[in-house]
Amino acid sequence: MAPDPLAIRRFLQDLQAEICGALEQADGTASFLADDRETIGGGLSAPRVMADGPVIERAGVHFTHSVGDRLPEAASARRPELGGRAFQAVSLSLIVHPRNPHAPTTHANFRYFQATAEGAPPIWWFGGGFDLTPIYGYDEDAIHWHRTARQACEPFGADVYPRLKAACDEYFFLPHRGEPRGIGGIFFDDWQEGGAETATAFLKSVGQHFLPAYIPILEQRKGMESTAAQRDFQLYRRGRYVEFNLIYDQGTRYGLQSGRRIEAVMCSMPPLVRWEYGHEPVPGSPEATLYDRYLVPRDWAS
Amino acid sequence: MAPDPLAIRRFLQDLQAEICGALEQADGTASFLADDRETIGGGLSAPRVMADGPVIERAGVHFTHSVGDRLPEAASARRPELGGRAFQAVSLSLIVHPRNPHAPTTHANFRYFQATAEGAPPIWWFGGGFDLTPIYGYDEDAIHWHRTARQACEPFGADVYPRLKAACDEYFFLPHRGEPRGIGGIFFDDWQEGGAETATAFLKSVGQHFLPAYIPILEQRKGMESTAAQRDFQLYRRGRYVEFNLIYDQGTRYGLQSGRRIEAVMCSMPPLVRWEYGHEPVPGSPEATLYDRYLVPRDWAS
Repeated sequence: MAPDPLAIRRFLQDLQAEICGALEQADGTASFLADDRETIGGGLSAPRVMADGPVIERAGVHFTHSVGDRLPEAASARRPELGGRAFQAVSLSLIVHPRNPHAPTTHANFRYFQATAEGAPPIWWFGGGFDLTPIYGYDEDAIHWHRTARQACEPFGADVYPRLKAACDEYFFLPHRGEPRGIGGIFFDDWQEGGAETATAFLKSVGQHFLPAYIPILEQRKGMESTAAQRDFQLYRRGRYVEFNLIYDQGTRYGLQSGRRIEAVMCSMPPLVRWEYGHEPVPGSPEATLYDRYLVPRDWAS
Repeated sequence: MAPDPLAIRRFLQDLQAEICGALEQADGTASFLADDRETIGGGLSAPRVMADGPVIERAGVHFTHSVGDRLPEAASARRPELGGRAFQAVSLSLIVHPRNPHAPTTHANFRYFQATAEGAPPIWWFGGGFDLTPIYGYDEDAIHWHRTARQACEPFGADVYPRLKAACDEYFFLPHRGEPRGIGGIFFDDWQEGGAETATAFLKSVGQHFLPAYIPILEQRKGMESTAAQRDFQLYRRGRYVEFNLIYDQGTRYGLQSGRRIEAVMCSMPPLVRWEYGHEPVPGSPEATLYDRYLVPRDWAS
């Protein structure tokens, strides 16, 4: 038995509403705009975008449900057995770019995919996770973030968090900079562990731990004093986010090639970004500490 | 006979000095910083970067001469006959991001490649061209730009400019936006037409026409009045430049993969960039005119 896509859709739409509500409450002023469109076969594209708030400079929290009769061969080069099958993909994907340089950027994704054919067992898996990208690092934030991620994984086995933490460090890495994108979190793909029921429960657990992981950090940092130089460093560091998403991120690249609504795909771009030639942080500065202490894989949960 | 790489190196280094001098003069305040490094086999990496001038917000004018004993197989998948050969690559590559939204961004490249082996004829070609990316379009600028490009090509045959203009329109295109990057110019690759002497003369002609094409436009636009809204639109449009360079540009992608100095590769990034969700220009506005009149392939030279 495969998991029920409609049940996952209900869960992810409820989670979308909950996350949008929590982010609006943290911001206090701005609100999310919806732009829902039904797609073929009972699918739905439901982006939510929030911009120019006092706390949140931009956030996108997008739900999509894609339904198709027949997977194109090109979409399944890695899994030729999927070609020609009917498929459903359900996904909630979000990004938050706070305004305060002390408040970290975050990204999360929760997704389910299935491909079915008459007289053959269904093929299905979950994927997703969440990761954090501080501009200025704080040990207590990193510890809270990773401990919450570990809590999400714990009911499913003691080895789950360390495996998914390592997968996250590996995925969110910029080879051309030799740099991790941030302090990581958890990342999983092709996830069926424990079968349909347990794997569904796992996705829900990860989804339900996102807000408890992020909101306390955002609340702690959103009101901190910051300088123009710190803002400049934030805009500079956002350049790495752009580089990662446009060069490496599979979701973005898939979105660009698949003809999804381009504005929904590009919503992950930061609102304002700066590039600077040959930027070198002053040794011992908080900027240097970001590279030396936080942009290195580290066991934060223990 | 292949063209002489050292003669091309001298030409391109002289051209680099001439272009940097002209851009400094147009700016009036800022100057280029050098960071030359000799590389193996008598090669040279000579970036020139200028930033924060009143006219030029950022410019990079980079000369490189790469020399190697043996082309890696991976570098020559498209041309397996090159594998294992000694090679030399000489290149001048430049980008100018002016501050005034009425002054267009420009990019140019002039390069020579050769691969030699004992007892076999050398393989060589030229590549490059120049293209223009206005934020606010002006017919007279587009006409001057393309007529100067046509003049560069004319001594080499009446069909050269139309072919290279079409190749430029094809190359500088963002499929995910369905948009050209700008108003184009000329673009060529694998260029050997007429043999070593004529092809070398062609590269020089294109190189020598860059400043006459660009400087009059920059002089005309650099002092124009502009509003905060026009500046915003400039930063927004620069996002397309980032998208093109990181997703499609072969030079940037090659630079990222080849282990070139990353700061020299990323120097093409605009200094400040903005993304906005669902931006739609007001019909009939100068912003809409950019899309309707300038971001469509058009015969500007006639």
